[in-house]
Amino acid sequence: MTFSSDGTPLFALVMAGGAGTRFWPLSRRSRPKQLLPFAQGRSLLAATVERLTPLVALERTLVVTSLDVAEAVRAELPQLLADNILAEPEGRDTAACVGWVAWRLARTAPGAVMLVVPADHLIPDGAALRSALATAAATAFARGGLVTLALRPTCPETGFGYLEVGEPVGAAGAHEIRAVKRFVEKPSRAAAEGFLAAGNFRWNSGMFAWTVSAIVDAIRTHLPDLAAGLDELMAATDAVGESEALRRHYPGLRKVSVDFGVMEKAAPVWAVEVDFAWSDIGSWVGLAEVLSESECGVSIGDVVTLDCEGSVLVSDGPLVAALGVRDLVVVATRDAVLVVPRDDVQRVKELVERLRAEGRSELL
Amino acid sequence: MTFSSDGTPLFALVMAGGAGTRFWPLSRRSRPKQLLPFAQGRSLLAATVERLTPLVALERTLVVTSLDVAEAVRAELPQLLADNILAEPEGRDTAACVGWVAWRLARTAPGAVMLVVPADHLIPDGAALRSALATAAATAFARGGLVTLALRPTCPETGFGYLEVGEPVGAAGAHEIRAVKRFVEKPSRAAAEGFLAAGNFRWNSGMFAWTVSAIVDAIRTHLPDLAAGLDELMAATDAVGESEALRRHYPGLRKVSVDFGVMEKAAPVWAVEVDFAWSDIGSWVGLAEVLSESECGVSIGDVVTLDCEGSVLVSDGPLVAALGVRDLVVVATRDAVLVVPRDDVQRVKELVERLRAEGRSELL
Repeated sequence: MTFSSDGTPLFALVMAGGAGTRFWPLSRRSRPKQLLPFAQGRSLLAATVERLTPLVALERTLVVTSLDVAEAVRAELPQLLADNILAEPEGRDTAACVGWVAWRLARTAPGAVMLVVPADHLIPDGAALRSALATAAATAFARGGLVTLALRPTCPETGFGYLEVGEPVGAAGAHEIRAVKRFVEKPSRAAAEGFLAAGNFRWNSGMFAWTVSAIVDAIRTHLPDLAAGLDELMAATDAVGESEALRRHYPGLRKVSVDFGVMEKAAPVWAVEVDFAWSDIGSWVGLAEVLSESECGVSIGDVVTLDCEGSVLVSDGPLVAALGVRDLVVVATRDAVLVVPRDDVQRVKELVERLRAEGRSELL
Repeated sequence: MTFSSDGTPLFALVMAGGAGTRFWPLSRRSRPKQLLPFAQGRSLLAATVERLTPLVALERTLVVTSLDVAEAVRAELPQLLADNILAEPEGRDTAACVGWVAWRLARTAPGAVMLVVPADHLIPDGAALRSALATAAATAFARGGLVTLALRPTCPETGFGYLEVGEPVGAAGAHEIRAVKRFVEKPSRAAAEGFLAAGNFRWNSGMFAWTVSAIVDAIRTHLPDLAAGLDELMAATDAVGESEALRRHYPGLRKVSVDFGVMEKAAPVWAVEVDFAWSDIGSWVGLAEVLSESECGVSIGDVVTLDCEGSVLVSDGPLVAALGVRDLVVVATRDAVLVVPRDDVQRVKELVERLRAEGRSELL
């Protein structure tokens, strides 16, 4: 890669902090979505790190997670140095997470390029991802500014953010590069259909590349309060050590997403166009869509069906025996069974809230 | 009671032989329906024996069950003499069960009156049942012939057999007595509606009374092959003991119900009219109807619901969390979860057959 010929190191930040209740009852506080075995039996997190490895050296792969699951994350990634697994005392959204790692790298590798990838996406073609990330890193190094991986929409999805892009300004490898003109939050169905027809909109993948100096500058410019908090955190780290510094200062950091807090306001932002299969599997139905090519539904684990259609049936323990059900999601674990129509699957959070309110924390 | 003033003893046969797959996965080979805790937390069997007790002495209460569950039945009925729990080596339907007990009683108490009650019915008002059974026993003693308890239909139920009855021939206690003109097997919906409108049809409860001599005579007349088999069984009992005799001769007994094999052909048959709440709870939906007065559905065990309607949600282990489901039956146990629409609940047997075919006997 061009930028590494002069020794510029490439780091990756794997964001593994999500708690995620959308996969309850399979996901729990102690086993969030990124630790679920949705990547052909391996966890999404393990698959994410393995996908990166031929591109990013393991000693430059940093995983940020929460204190709650740091132990489980370490167990899932035995190949990683323990020092490379960083634990937030509480989640403060992605800008703080990215900022913390950037501030750390600014001390040890200020000239580095940094990739940012979520730990809970499903991307079967690792080589295609690495090609795209290499291009994004090279673009960030060569052009400056912030770089995001952009996917050409295949349907009017309302669950993703969109990017409005300009004409191609160049290409690197197989990937066109365009300037991002505007970020659009999750649109209405009608708006998404308009974006799809217009042709100059892309899905925002949530995967980024930038130089350490570019993201530090962007945070100082667009989120000065976060930058000040990070300065304090680093000063406290020197004074009292990182654990204590995090305990004191991390919970006070400005809580905002890197998309909303930085990317939407920064310029230039470059979109590197990619076209690999990708899913952020936001729900059981999303998982089913990734796993099954038909509309007949999908079964995972010990499931027996008779005359079922369009249903997502998952077992992580007891046999699930379903007869004549239509468009239903059933997820059975040793201690909890979820039953919800496909169309209501986004409401699982309400059930989880109800259980929390009823003091059923052993099930969360 | 009139017939006991001269010392005629009253026996009860509790038929507890059913295997029953309709309540799978809660019911198993080792825990058939009559052992399920559907009687306010107690088993249907225990509740049945307790209902009889003030009327029938415990030493005259005989429970017939299958070898598979005899141990569990003994554990459920610690107050009963072990000798009063009789185990069939295999189920041969109700005529053989009734005949075996009648043939035994013909030796030890030939002048006795015998009540026959299934172990898996739900009858909340024990006193009303005992009043009806006392009347039935007195009728059997005074009039001879066979006596059945008859319920006035409250809806055009297609799951029960019907009795066409004549005009009242008398009354005993609060109960009218009528001659049974004809037995009708489970009718079509249209026929059931006709029966309900006609007014001279009753539900056949499956609870009977007769003298030992009357039922022995009726079996000899209408099921001579069964009678011959029972004669052999008793002779073999004398020769080799009851266990070995059962092993040799019981499986060869004619397999037919007492309704079809005897009652439909015998005369006179008397119907003692009763009007207590009664259910044979033939399915999860039947159970729900007994337990809930509304159409909103019913939850048993550890169940949390949000916006559910008309559903039967049962847990015997894991939490069942249901959101937005309509007219669904969910039954969760430690090792199996059933999901089936209300309207398909009679098809649970198909699922059980499927599991049997797939060698999943640990779940049956």
